[in-house]
Amino acid sequence: MKIHVLLSPLNADEIYFTGKTTVVIDVLRATSTIVSALENGAREIIPVNTVEFAMKVSGTSFGGQTLLAGERNAVKIDGFAMGNSPLEFKPEVISGKSIILYTTNGSKAIVKSKFSENLFVASFNNLTAIARHLLNLGEDTVIVCSGMNGMFCMEDSVCAGMLLDEMIQSHQSLELTDSGKACLVLYENVRSDIHAMLKKTEHGRLLEDKGFSEDLLHCAKVGISDVVPVYSTGVIKPFVKEEV
Amino acid sequence: MKIHVLLSPLNADEIYFTGKTTVVIDVLRATSTIVSALENGAREIIPVNTVEFAMKVSGTSFGGQTLLAGERNAVKIDGFAMGNSPLEFKPEVISGKSIILYTTNGSKAIVKSKFSENLFVASFNNLTAIARHLLNLGEDTVIVCSGMNGMFCMEDSVCAGMLLDEMIQSHQSLELTDSGKACLVLYENVRSDIHAMLKKTEHGRLLEDKGFSEDLLHCAKVGISDVVPVYSTGVIKPFVKEEV
Repeated sequence: MKIHVLLSPLNADEIYFTGKTTVVIDVLRATSTIVSALENGAREIIPVNTVEFAMKVSGTSFGGQTLLAGERNAVKIDGFAMGNSPLEFKPEVISGKSIILYTTNGSKAIVKSKFSENLFVASFNNLTAIARHLLNLGEDTVIVCSGMNGMFCMEDSVCAGMLLDEMIQSHQSLELTDSGKACLVLYENVRSDIHAMLKKTEHGRLLEDKGFSEDLLHCAKVGISDVVPVYSTGVIKPFVKEEV
Repeated sequence: MKIHVLLSPLNADEIYFTGKTTVVIDVLRATSTIVSALENGAREIIPVNTVEFAMKVSGTSFGGQTLLAGERNAVKIDGFAMGNSPLEFKPEVISGKSIILYTTNGSKAIVKSKFSENLFVASFNNLTAIARHLLNLGEDTVIVCSGMNGMFCMEDSVCAGMLLDEMIQSHQSLELTDSGKACLVLYENVRSDIHAMLKKTEHGRLLEDKGFSEDLLHCAKVGISDVVPVYSTGVIKPFVKEEV
């Protein structure tokens, strides 16, 4: 089983993903938020790569029964119902809703990977479920670290490293490229103290400055959700095992 | 002193470099080759980003007194005088010559960084000289890892980490972004055994398969040259301290 890691979505273009099995990670905070939203009963998430497209989809699709969510520079966008904090996505607010999500890094990375044959969304929160799902699937996989404004970010790479480590612990022999090996080294350098790592990252410090310290605590929790978010034809829903 | 590392040239566009102090690294092999060529008496190196432009420059500029050098898929290009092995650039072959260099990763990364205010070229071979030069200059700096076909590669990132480590050892306090911190972790994971690291990388294995084992031994040598290659107006020459 070959696993390749893109340390930034800029390392590949859209067509690269055609036919691939892909996992997108944006720990702070888009993919943590998507996991929370689906865990708490959202009907689906519609990731978009521009605010304009978010507005358009909101008005014309899904019977207008949508919630607009997202951020620019970590802060809720004017006129949107919600920001990009996973803690906002409570059952009483989002249950049964279609949520249109625009974020600086994660939602764009998911949209960029849209031609993938299988496309999943991972964070520390659902890391164990994703590791298990990938092992069951047994396909060569590309992990996309959403990064920060096109640049490398530490937290997504450490998360990718922890995902690889979990798969290796399950006695899966993985064939890794340089970037995968680097993620393992970065994870081994951090190990269990994910929250301390998040606090030291560029993005983590930015979020703490803007008052989102609670988000960091939440995003650092490993394996608290069994949701495997799957993207298909424009929307993200929880994976449901088909009955035989 | 702030140092940022781009783990791939794709992480930024040309205009990003305007006014910046930049160091480009391509350990295997372009920047190791440039150091060798200048150490061994080449007049200058002209890095180019297409084979077509290499041919054009060769015919029309520098009085036609040029040597064409470069590779595609690690192998010398048909019709070129030389490949991209630093061991080919011996004094008797290149002394006093202008060398046009096309390579898959490094020469393109240098051309992409051309709007930099200061643009230097580094490898393990001249790492100590570059660290000293940057400390003397005292400017915020961007280190560009040339990577491999736009992707992350281990050897350039470890070299960037070693460069940062040397600067920190000189009691310079550096302000690092996530990518710089990651490079330090990757370097600390390897430390002194650079050659063993190179042999394990994707690019190192490719070069060994193609018969370039000696190149890996050469490119792993730390601080064997005091040359500080400086790019300015299209050509790379050794830095010469101006007399006061």
